[in-house]
Amino acid sequence: MPGPLDDLLIIDLSRVLAGPYATMLLSDLGARVIKVERPGVGDDSRAIGPFLGDQSAYFASINRGKQSIALDLKLPEDRSVFEALLARADVLVENYRPGVLRKLGYGWETLSARYPRLIVAAVSGFGQTGPDAKKAAYDMVVQAMGGIMSVTGWPGGPPTRVGTSVGDITAGLFTVTGILAAVHDRARPGPQQGRGQLVDVSMLDGQIAILENAIARYAVTGESPGPLGARHGSITPFAAFACADGHVVIAAGNDALWAALAKALDLPPDPRFASNPSRTAHWQAVAAAIEAVLVHHPVAHWLAVLDKAGVPVGQIQNIEQALNHPQVRARNMVIETAFPDGTPLLAAGNPVKLSGHDDPAVRPAAPALDGDRAAILRELGL
Amino acid sequence: MPGPLDDLLIIDLSRVLAGPYATMLLSDLGARVIKVERPGVGDDSRAIGPFLGDQSAYFASINRGKQSIALDLKLPEDRSVFEALLARADVLVENYRPGVLRKLGYGWETLSARYPRLIVAAVSGFGQTGPDAKKAAYDMVVQAMGGIMSVTGWPGGPPTRVGTSVGDITAGLFTVTGILAAVHDRARPGPQQGRGQLVDVSMLDGQIAILENAIARYAVTGESPGPLGARHGSITPFAAFACADGHVVIAAGNDALWAALAKALDLPPDPRFASNPSRTAHWQAVAAAIEAVLVHHPVAHWLAVLDKAGVPVGQIQNIEQALNHPQVRARNMVIETAFPDGTPLLAAGNPVKLSGHDDPAVRPAAPALDGDRAAILRELGL
Repeated sequence: MPGPLDDLLIIDLSRVLAGPYATMLLSDLGARVIKVERPGVGDDSRAIGPFLGDQSAYFASINRGKQSIALDLKLPEDRSVFEALLARADVLVENYRPGVLRKLGYGWETLSARYPRLIVAAVSGFGQTGPDAKKAAYDMVVQAMGGIMSVTGWPGGPPTRVGTSVGDITAGLFTVTGILAAVHDRARPGPQQGRGQLVDVSMLDGQIAILENAIARYAVTGESPGPLGARHGSITPFAAFACADGHVVIAAGNDALWAALAKALDLPPDPRFASNPSRTAHWQAVAAAIEAVLVHHPVAHWLAVLDKAGVPVGQIQNIEQALNHPQVRARNMVIETAFPDGTPLLAAGNPVKLSGHDDPAVRPAAPALDGDRAAILRELGL
Repeated sequence: MPGPLDDLLIIDLSRVLAGPYATMLLSDLGARVIKVERPGVGDDSRAIGPFLGDQSAYFASINRGKQSIALDLKLPEDRSVFEALLARADVLVENYRPGVLRKLGYGWETLSARYPRLIVAAVSGFGQTGPDAKKAAYDMVVQAMGGIMSVTGWPGGPPTRVGTSVGDITAGLFTVTGILAAVHDRARPGPQQGRGQLVDVSMLDGQIAILENAIARYAVTGESPGPLGARHGSITPFAAFACADGHVVIAAGNDALWAALAKALDLPPDPRFASNPSRTAHWQAVAAAIEAVLVHHPVAHWLAVLDKAGVPVGQIQNIEQALNHPQVRARNMVIETAFPDGTPLLAAGNPVKLSGHDDPAVRPAAPALDGDRAAILRELGL
């Protein structure tokens, strides 16, 4: 499929989510991705639901447009195939526990010596270095250890996981960044010209990297912020507010937007509400003043009123509402792909819209396990 | 600062978080970033806490290593400076509401005609196209509209925001992906060689793109999943569990890890627990069986036992614990930068570790508003 990366060949040993999410994005941007899977079982996520019949929708949505060959990296004949692929590849993506590939004879130093142009992207729970490098992690472990669970949820309430696998997905996105930075570095004049490098991304590192305001708060006060429910810690009002029949989210990120909100709701003047720092110090009073007005009308009323006033406002949409929202549809963010057997599957589109390339509404199917063996072997002359 | 992108010049009109987060990552990877700020006020986030004295730690942590010049894009003399910068730039990043730059005479078509090599990255709440393009959004609005709030929190509980600005940050990461894809496209032989393109990223699109399992579930069942508290919807056990003195997170992502967990906890055999789909169907029974054992010992005990058994396990760390974790420190994920006046500030490090480049433990300070004017004008010969 044409795209800005359609000259890149990615060999993908990764499984489940962080690595496959990275290569999905690269594939959506035109790169050719060949999944190298374990014979017989394949990517673990083929066994993770939701299922349609015996096919995983989870696997299919993340692996659309990729090819698959099953190789046992302990068998000499399969190693030859793998090495022929590496000789042609731009990037190898893997998410084994650190050390596993080295035991197979494919450590970074070996790969770099043999395939100098090869970029190796290793995404792991804790990274290739440090005392915990060899421990296993999944999304939820790094959400817990990285601090995001400590700032998500309600004060005094039970521990709360972010409802999407933000530990995997952010690691996947940092991996894409590292790969594309290394591709650039390899192409331009300089010490790395013509050479690949190791991109080492840790899911735990990724969680630290997205904490933003919580770290700034700790850095200044020496205190760890707790969960804030549905509001922002430094901007007020920036929260969910109760209306007659549900909640709206209002985000007045600067004084002009606050003025527009106060006018639209006809809030009484209050010197405590004069600046964002003062509103944040008095966030409970701000919320009480807003909800005293909102509670008299339903969500739909306030969406219309505040939208007209130019105040950022939104409804808390469920998945069906989100996927059917006219703006989401207009942006081609709900696309059609297919299970390995060709059954159509609805999936999220590619959020990177580029003026130089099409943004297809239909993406090729996810591969059957080993489904591209014959074509790949033929292409390699094996 | 040397890095894989140290040949790139980024002109950054963006404010608050999504755009500045993108350019922070580019800057951490070596790109030179010049912030063009509004005279007198600058980036809105200079007024967003937490503060140390009158300086925003939030602003400083996200804008480290960048330069600043204040320009009023309505004044002819400032426009000349801006245009001289664009003539030298690789990338312009902006996050105005769509249409604002066009009114200033800097719409994409105009920029593209005048600066054919310029890549323009526009990150906005809803994107450059579609019925809601011109509406304003902040993080929380897209968290609500994009569905992530509907799957975060506890069943029957109040609406819950993800405790970090995942709406901005994922948009920032997709923007980086688009920019680097466009840089690659511009460098290689093909229809885009020598030409920039428009990278159009919407925060709402980004939220749809990270829903993964929730969309797969809706696609297969036609039902919108609700919040799951602290567990995963398709993998069991993958949740927080109560011990004698708090919670641990256990993520047994495949049958081998489940077997290791069952052995370590000496769980009674149960045919319902034979496969991941069956465990997920009976997740309450699985949780009850696990907690019946865990409740007899404290968190520290179970971390040691399960870690030894090779089961992915973690503690729910607060920000202080996360930032002081030996693995996080060993990975250089807590770095030193500085406020504009030079006062040191602790911040998150760069999670993209590359074998070809250093990963500095100290990053240059964030700029004072207009702090680099003289040097920039001199460099431009103005």
